This record gives sequence, structure tokens and C-alpha cells, in this order.
Amino acid sequence: MVSITFMVNGSQVQISANVGDNLLAAAQRANVAIDAPCSGNGACGKCRVKLLSGELDSPRTRHISDEEYAQGWRLSCVSKVMGDVTVEVPDIASAYRSRMKVADISSPKELEIFNRTKAQIEAAGIEFGNDLSSLTVKMDPPTTDDTMPDNERLTWALQAATGAERVRFTYHALRALARVLRESDFEVRCVIEREGDAISVMDVLPAGDTAPVAGLVVDLGTTSVAALLVDMETGAVLSKASTGNGQIRYGADVINRIIESGREGGGERLQRAVIEESIRPLVQQMCASVGIPTRRVYRMALAGNTTMNHLLLGLYSEPVRMEPYIPSFFHCDDIRTSSLHMHLHPDARLILAPNIGSYVGGDITAGCFASMLWNKEELSLFIDLGTNGELVFGNNEFLMSCACSAGPAFEGGDISCGMRATDGAIDSMTIDPQTWEPSYTLIGDAAQPVGICGSGIIDIIAELFRCGIINGKGKFNREHKRVRFDEHGMGEYVIAFKEDTGAVRDVSINEVDIDNFIRAKGAIFSATMTMLSSMGMDPSVLEHVYVAGGIGSGINMKNAVTIGMLPDIDLDHFSYIGNSSLSGAYAMLTSVQSREKVDELARTMTYLELSTEPGYMDSFVAACFLPHTDANLFPSVSI
Amino acid sequence: MVSITFMVNGSQVQISANVGDNLLAAAQRANVAIDAPCSGNGACGKCRVKLLSGELDSPRTRHISDEEYAQGWRLSCVSKVMGDVTVEVPDIASAYRSRMKVADISSPKELEIFNRTKAQIEAAGIEFGNDLSSLTVKMDPPTTDDTMPDNERLTWALQAATGAERVRFTYHALRALARVLRESDFEVRCVIEREGDAISVMDVLPAGDTAPVAGLVVDLGTTSVAALLVDMETGAVLSKASTGNGQIRYGADVINRIIESGREGGGERLQRAVIEESIRPLVQQMCASVGIPTRRVYRMALAGNTTMNHLLLGLYSEPVRMEPYIPSFFHCDDIRTSSLHMHLHPDARLILAPNIGSYVGGDITAGCFASMLWNKEELSLFIDLGTNGELVFGNNEFLMSCACSAGPAFEGGDISCGMRATDGAIDSMTIDPQTWEPSYTLIGDAAQPVGICGSGIIDIIAELFRCGIINGKGKFNREHKRVRFDEHGMGEYVIAFKEDTGAVRDVSINEVDIDNFIRAKGAIFSATMTMLSSMGMDPSVLEHVYVAGGIGSGINMKNAVTIGMLPDIDLDHFSYIGNSSLSGAYAMLTSVQSREKVDELARTMTYLELSTEPGYMDSFVAACFLPHTDANLFPSVSI
Repeated sequence: MVSITFMVNGSQVQISANVGDNLLAAAQRANVAIDAPCSGNGACGKCRVKLLSGELDSPRTRHISDEEYAQGWRLSCVSKVMGDVTVEVPDIASAYRSRMKVADISSPKELEIFNRTKAQIEAAGIEFGNDLSSLTVKMDPPTTDDTMPDNERLTWALQAATGAERVRFTYHALRALARVLRESDFEVRCVIEREGDAISVMDVLPAGDTAPVAGLVVDLGTTSVAALLVDMETGAVLSKASTGNGQIRYGADVINRIIESGREGGGERLQRAVIEESIRPLVQQMCASVGIPTRRVYRMALAGNTTMNHLLLGLYSEPVRMEPYIPSFFHCDDIRTSSLHMHLHPDARLILAPNIGSYVGGDITAGCFASMLWNKEELSLFIDLGTNGELVFGNNEFLMSCACSAGPAFEGGDISCGMRATDGAIDSMTIDPQTWEPSYTLIGDAAQPVGICGSGIIDIIAELFRCGIINGKGKFNREHKRVRFDEHGMGEYVIAFKEDTGAVRDVSINEVDIDNFIRAKGAIFSATMTMLSSMGMDPSVLEHVYVAGGIGSGINMKNAVTIGMLPDIDLDHFSYIGNSSLSGAYAMLTSVQSREKVDELARTMTYLELSTEPGYMDSFVAACFLPHTDANLFPSVSI
Repeated sequence: MVSITFMVNGSQVQISANVGDNLLAAAQRANVAIDAPCSGNGACGKCRVKLLSGELDSPRTRHISDEEYAQGWRLSCVSKVMGDVTVEVPDIASAYRSRMKVADISSPKELEIFNRTKAQIEAAGIEFGNDLSSLTVKMDPPTTDDTMPDNERLTWALQAATGAERVRFTYHALRALARVLRESDFEVRCVIEREGDAISVMDVLPAGDTAPVAGLVVDLGTTSVAALLVDMETGAVLSKASTGNGQIRYGADVINRIIESGREGGGERLQRAVIEESIRPLVQQMCASVGIPTRRVYRMALAGNTTMNHLLLGLYSEPVRMEPYIPSFFHCDDIRTSSLHMHLHPDARLILAPNIGSYVGGDITAGCFASMLWNKEELSLFIDLGTNGELVFGNNEFLMSCACSAGPAFEGGDISCGMRATDGAIDSMTIDPQTWEPSYTLIGDAAQPVGICGSGIIDIIAELFRCGIINGKGKFNREHKRVRFDEHGMGEYVIAFKEDTGAVRDVSINEVDIDNFIRAKGAIFSATMTMLSSMGMDPSVLEHVYVAGGIGSGINMKNAVTIGMLPDIDLDHFSYIGNSSLSGAYAMLTSVQSREKVDELARTMTYLELSTEPGYMDSFVAACFLPHTDANLFPSVSI
């Protein structure tokens, strides 16, 4: 036995191991967080640690420069422990915090999507209105002739004001009651929840209190978590923020996380990772930006894929990934956020967007709702490019869904310089066909590129292909100032040299990255084709294609067609609708009728299992080419 | 400033204080638990600490022998800090634990009262039956052709078995679901709660599980806490136990505790004291004796006076003690025990016996129900001798209640050798009129007396009076081997000399004790008379008098009449009904109809405020004599 010491953020964690043990696995065993989105296959280069003493059997990979290797940097996933060893682990929690972004909602662009969602939903005849509100009432103080207890006194006042038949008090409200009544002269602001003829008093506040009755919306993605703080009484977005999913240390994909969740204590570990490292910090930041305590958040709505909502609830999730793929629930209405230690108002309910199967979850039912697909006669397609790809095809008469394993490439995963669509990401690019010099735009104020997000990767591959720098298989044709080959013959295009940017590494894209992305876009395209074929249709029937997901608002539809990701139809038919899971969950939080409609969509939506669909695998293989092995499918793409 | 160090159970707590500060007050400020039932008035002698170093200005009181004083024992309530000081504090928590008593329920006597309560309630046409039960169902396992999610599969099975329209799952049940279904081949035992057409699944257990669906009954007294563990499906009592109320360190009476609760953080301190030091240990002990974990307790019913149930809930209680005496609630139905950190099943509800005013609480509504007073045509009186005295007078047509400040004497408080009716207590006594030698019986197996419980004190005073050893004012007439006078002329009768028992102190009763007890019995008697007078009646109308409370089952009704505590009517009219608050709460837990009946009694019961009733004070003063200043009221008592 040897001893491994992990130095993390000033503290140290020690664990025993056998000679030859994998360092990443040992870290996971010791519950030391190392960012490992590719699950330890050596592909992503993100699980770096710094060797301080001892010996590791660790090859220099393409992710580590000679200089870095000399400094002690190693990829933990390819490192074997050879004796007692001490390594420094970059602090993943602070990395996450630094990745957290609170949006500037004074910019109209940030809120445009929610205003549009709201307008479209109202246009469809669905009311925006929910059962949470505040109400100020005044009572006569008790006297020796009027000794009614406090809760009955307030009950009478609320019944007079609302006509409610029954008034109940949450424990939290009961605790506040006696003191607040007396401190504010028996005039109080109550936060109430209506349930038919009854109302439930969630909070008793002084009459002068004007803080919003806040609600929380969360899009829980496998990679990223986005959230809104909303005024439940007006529907106004108060704050908007995003961060990484803290579960990522247990693997980038849902499968690895489910495996981890099946281990002793694993369900709790994964639950805590996302709640304590992602959702709670987001809520704290958003509440701080608005100046309210987190227990002023009275309701939460969350949309996430089936695995994400199971892991959020700490459920045993192995049945979700094992044949016959059985989730614990599709609909689940009765959970309080306090059961999950969310630290919101102790009686805040959790509304979960319903799942329809193991591979089509609440993110899709909420997103499909937000796309408004279900409200049109014309046939349309909804594509959500998350860590997996999910599609819904249909109209106001039917809805059919499917899921494909696109992998995390659209969100920058499995791509060496990939990143989410956030500050410093290259989100669009062109290449000069003569000089092969790139021009790009960056998200945010960054002066230099940090990496490439999904929309940027589409542009780069389309431009490399259009300029003839790569061929239909995604291979580089020849060397150039910006194109280089390593000892194995693997080509790479450098977008930004570190000498020019002052960064540690070049920002580049290599053939492995391109190959990963081609497989991802091939999965989406073949899923589209298989679903249409199953109905005896082809892409020409599509009146509208809604593209959603973390790929970035900069997505260039023409380029997405060029690389054969989206079908070759009129570009006017495409719309990017952003994070539709978040906007759908926003509608579910703020509108009872929207919530009912999402539940109805979920009940009626059918599911097409691609893996058992004849022709899907062939279709996928044929689509793993730029734009496609059948050029007739892409008449507009001329090389 | 000086420094006080408290050594408690091996750890030490330090606090700064001013010279001259009271040691007990400093301990309370430092949250160091010192038993102080008399609230620091030097009367009870129970707040002893041992001086290890430094200087205290502390007189030797009658509670500390010379030998003890020399050893360093001091009463903290009469000690002033004169410089840096270190004292050892007897561990109150372990004192409490050692006071905890789990009853031997194999003894029929222990359960007699609950069986009788149940029989009487059933005889009154009230059904014993509640909404909690267990149910075993078998399902077909999922297949690729039958991919219903787990919660829907179980919902179908439960609907088929019960006809319920809607099935919901608690978070706890949902968490267990996937694993238990698969580990027990889709045959499971569900613990369900029925609510009209709906059922709520609280637990999903393997089919072979046979543990009882347990419920908890608590009588929360100011001084003592008694509890039952019950099988919700059969009503059988599984375990019975009692302990002290952990709040006692903040004062023996409700007033001092309310004052403490109004201080910064006081509400939480009092709540934690009773939950963490009394109720949770009781539940743990009882569950251990039955061999089930505490989260197999699915429901809790509690009866306690208004202040006790307010402090249990951590409510701001100053309005309860301040004119116009307003509680936060009479009825309160919507509390989960998890909000109080009871550590039962996380979704276990709390049923509280309703209050009817600040001074007549759930212990009386539950107790009155258990007395069956409300089911008879004849006029009867119910007297609960707790830390306060409460009375209900009436029949099946009306109920009138009142409360009097009897003080804690009936439970042994304010009596120098007083104790609760538990092991080692003298519970009955006679005195030889010739020799003045006592004969007594002890509770339990104790070889020597530890102190005197309420029923013992009644006997002693009655016998001292009957033998002419004390006069009608409770003063000793002359010296004797067993009667001595101190330097102030205060007489004392020694029941057991320490030389005979080997104890540290004599067991005795002195004039202060007798005076305290006379005031307590005077309060009860004058309350009885005032209530009867208010209706133009006298004791002759009483068909039955039910005496309840912690005074002990050994209460001698003849002696209680002799000292003028109970009205001088035929002794056949009296019944001791034990802890009626506990048996009433037992009925509320196990029978929905009983719970509804208690609520109905509470709504219809009127309250007579004695303090504003003409003649009450005169009546009280007249009753502070043995048996009474008006001997005509006690014709049977001949001296």
C-alpha cells in the first residue's frame, strides 16, 4: 500500500492506494473533486493536477506542454500511482464559483426570450397567473373583551379580504405570527398560497414590507445550470445567473453519474454536489443581487433531463440506465424544497417539469412547451442541443419525441479547447479563403479568446470545410502556418497562438475534436431523418425548426446546414430559441395554466426509441461526413 | 470583570461576570443547565454546585449540611460571585436521563388506564380507528413492453387494493421506491395515510417487514413528560416512559419560562430543551425497547398546557402571560414533526390537543375527554393536579373550565423533600397517634425513601393534623423526637433520619413545605367552590369527581378531604384517573373520531376567569387552613 495526499485549497486529504492505481479514481474514492468531463478517457485534458512530490507513471499527453510537464502538471486520468505521492488539485469549487455568472438584466437582450415566451403563451390563450401572492390586512388589536387567539384573528381578516373558506398557517408563519402582529400594530403583509377555497399563509411580514414574493426557476443541465429569480406577483425577472453542474466531477455524462449514484452513499454525493455547489450558490448570488434573503423564495420550478431530476432528488437511478429503462417517476408534485435542503422558504414547493421516459425528460417537455410547436397547425421540429440531443416533431395534433447520444460537444465538451457559451468563448468565426486567417467574435468583454463554444465550433468546421482546409471526413489536407500535424499525423488548426494572446496554450481545433463534433452533428441529423421517415415524411414538410440549448445564440444556421447538422431547407425556417428548458420552467413557475399545459403535453407526447428503429444506425453512419455521404440531401452546400 | 468557569460533565464553560453577580443567573446566561425548579428563590435547594476554587458569597442554607458546606457545596441561587471562580455543576442531562423511566408494560396495571379509556370511549359510541395503516401489494415487474415508471406502477397496485382515487408519495417514500421494489421483487409493504379519496404513501418497505406502524403519544407537562409508543394499526401500547421536562432549568413555572423565551434566542433554547433533552430521548428509549428505529414513528399526538405547546413550537409566548393573555393559536393542525426536529418519520404529522385559552390548554381538553364527563347526564367535576390546577365542571350539556395557580406542590415542587411519583418516593403514610412514629410505602423497589410525592404529602399533612402534631394553620405544636425547631422557630417533622437510611439528608417536612401545600390545596378548593357558586350550586350536586395528574395513584381521597383539598362528599364519588392528558392524547392519536370529539369539546367549553370572579380571593384565603376556616364545609372531618 502507498499513500496519496491531495492538497486542495489549503487542506489535505490522504488515502491509501495500491501501486498502479489510477490517480483520478483514487481522488474520486477520496471524494476529492477533480474536473473530469470526459470521464477519464484522456480526451478533454481538464483533470490536471500538479505533482509536488513522489512518483506518478504519467505520459505527457497533447494537453500538457513540455513546460507544463516540467512544472509537474499531469493529467490525473492517465496517471498511475507508483509510490507515496503528493499532488496539488486545482480547487474545483472556486473554479465553479468563478464560472458563475450573474447576468446584467438591465440589458434588454437578456430578458427578451422570457418576454417573448410570455407574449406567445398569452397569445395562445394561456393565462399568466399563479397561486402565490401577498396581501396586507389590518386587524383590531385584542382586548380583554376580545381574546381571540392570533391565528384566528388573522384568519378572520384574511377571510374577509379574500372570501377563502379555510385558512391554514405554515409552521414558519405561525412562528412569526405573535411577534410580527405586535411589532406592526396588527397590520401585516401575508404571503399566501391559494388552493381552491383554502389559503395557506406562508409568511407574516410587517405591513411596510415591500420585498418581492420571489420564485426560482432552474434549468438543470448535465453540464450547466441556469436560473432565474422571478417576482411571482408580476412575472418580472429579477435576476438571472448560470454556473456549472457540480456533479461534473463524477463524469460529464449521465451514465457515469448514475453509476456513481449506485455506489454506497453515491446518491447523496451527487445530490449534494448539484444542490450545494450549483443551485444554492446561484440562489445566494441572485438573492444578494436583489437584496433579499433566500427564504423569501416561496416556490421553485425546475426542468432537467430524467437523470438530472432523479439525481437532484437523490433517487436510486440505476433502473433509468439499465434495460428496461424505468424511472422512479414521470410526474412528481409533492416535494418541498426543504426536503432537498435548498434553503429557500421552508415551505416552498418544488414544481418539476414532467419526464416522459428515461431519455426524454422535463427539459424537453418544458422546452417543447416554450417552443409553441404544439400550438400550430404546421409541422415543426424542436431540437434541444444539450449534453444529449433531443428532438420533438409535431404540431397541434400530435407530438413525437426522440433522443440521441450527441455527447457534450455542443456545449464544448469533448473538444480540447471547448467551453460553454460564456465570457471569452469564440462564438462565431470566418476564415479568409485566401490567407486561411481567422476572424472571430468573443462573448463578453474578453480581450483574448479563452476557448470555443458550440456555435463557434460549427463556424470553424464549416469554414475549414468551405475553404477546403479539411475534407469531408474532417481531416486536414496540408500543412500551413495555422495547420500543423503532430507525431501521429493528427492535424490541428490554430485559431489563436499563445504568443499572440499571452495565454498558456494555443486555442485550436484538432482532428479528434472535429471527429467528435461530426459524430454529434451526425446523431442529430440522423435522428431528424429517422423520425421523419417513421412518419413517411422528409425535411420538406418542416414549416419551422426551433433550435434550443447551450450552443449559444450566435449559432449560424447556414453553417449548421453546411456541416450537415440541420436539414437543408430554407434558412428562414430556422429559429434559435435559446434555453427553452429555462423559459418553459419560467412559464410553469409563473402560470398555473402553463404548468397544466406542460403536464398535458407530457401525457400525450409519444417516444420513438431510435436504437430499435430500423435504419437508424445506417443513417447515423451516413451522416458522419461533411455535409453527408449523400450530397443530394444538401443541394445548397456547394464545395 | 471576573471569570466564572463551570465544569460540566468533563467539559468547561467560561463566562465573564461582574463582582456580585448571581451565580445561577450567570449559569443561565452561559446556557449551563442547573436544576432550579423554584426559580432561584432559595426554597427548593436543588440548584447545588460544588465550589472548586475561588470565592463565592454564599450563606449556608437549611438545604446544605455543615459537612456538605465544608465539601464546597453551595446553592447557586443564593451565591454571589466575588472573584474568579470555578464550580462543578452536577450534570443535569444525565440527571434527567437517570430520571427517565421506561415502564414495564408486561404489568397489567401500567396499561389498565389505556384499556379502560379505550373501552369507555367505545362504549360512548366512538370508533377506534385512524387513517394510518400498512398494506402489502404485489406488482408485475417492468419489461421492455411495460415501462411504466415505478411510482405509477405502485399507484395502480394501491388503487386496485384500496379503491383510492389519487395516490401521492412523500419524498421519503419516493426515495426508497426504486431500490426497495427491485430488492423485494416488486412485492412491497406500504405505510399509507388515507385522506378522503386519496392516499399518501409514507413508506415503501420490503414485503417481509413486520415492524409495527408506530405512533407517539406525549403528555407534555411543565414538570414531567410522559409518553407512549403505540401500534397505530391495533391501538396496542408498545412502550411507556416518562422523564423530566428539560426546560426546568429555566424555572419551574410557566411564567419564568415565558420570560426566558422572550429573550434573544430564548424561544429556541426552550424549544430545544424540551425536544432534545426530554422528548427525543424518550422516543429513543421507547423505540429501542421495541427494537424499531425512530423513523418508524409515523404520527405524534401531544397534549400540554397552552404555554407548553407554545414553547414546544418555539413561539413568542409573552402575549400568553401578559394581559389580555392571547395565545398564538387554540387549534393548530398543520405541523410536521420534522419542523420541530423530532427525528421521527420525516413526514409524521403532529396532532396537538386544542387549547381553549391561555390558562386552559390541551392537557385539559384531552384530559376532560378521557374523563368521560361529557358523556353523562350527572354533573361531575374533573380536577387536573399538574403544576397548575385546572378544573372542568359539567355534563353532556355544558362544560365550564377554570384554572388556579396551585403551584408545583402536587408534583413535589416547592417542597424541600418533594419529588415526582417515581421510584423511591413516599406515596402513602400513616402516623401512630401515640408514638408519632410514621409508617410509609415507597414507589418501586427502593429500600429507603428518596423524597415525598404529592400523594405522600397529602397523607403526611392529614396525619400530622389528625394526630394533633400540627394545628389548622400547619404549625407544629411542640417538640418531639421527630419534631424539631430551627433557630428561627420553624418546625419540622422528620420521616426518615439519615442515620437510619444512610442518606445524606433526612427526609422531612417543614412548616414552609406545609404552608406551600396548604396554599396549593386552598387554590384547588376555592376554585371548586367558586365555579359551583357561579352556577348557584354547591358540592352536593357532584355526582362524580375525577382527580387526574402526577400526584400519584396512591392518593388517599379521605386524607385529601381531611386537609380540605377536595369537597367533603361521599368518598365513593371520587376516582383517580391517572394521567388523563396522556390517555386523552392516546385516544386522539389512535381514533379519528376521538380527535374530532376533543375538538368539539374545546369549541364548546367555556372558561371562568377566577381572578375577576367576585369572592374568589376571599374564598382562597378562607381555604388556606386545615381543613377550612369554615368547619361546616367539612362535617366529616372531626378533630
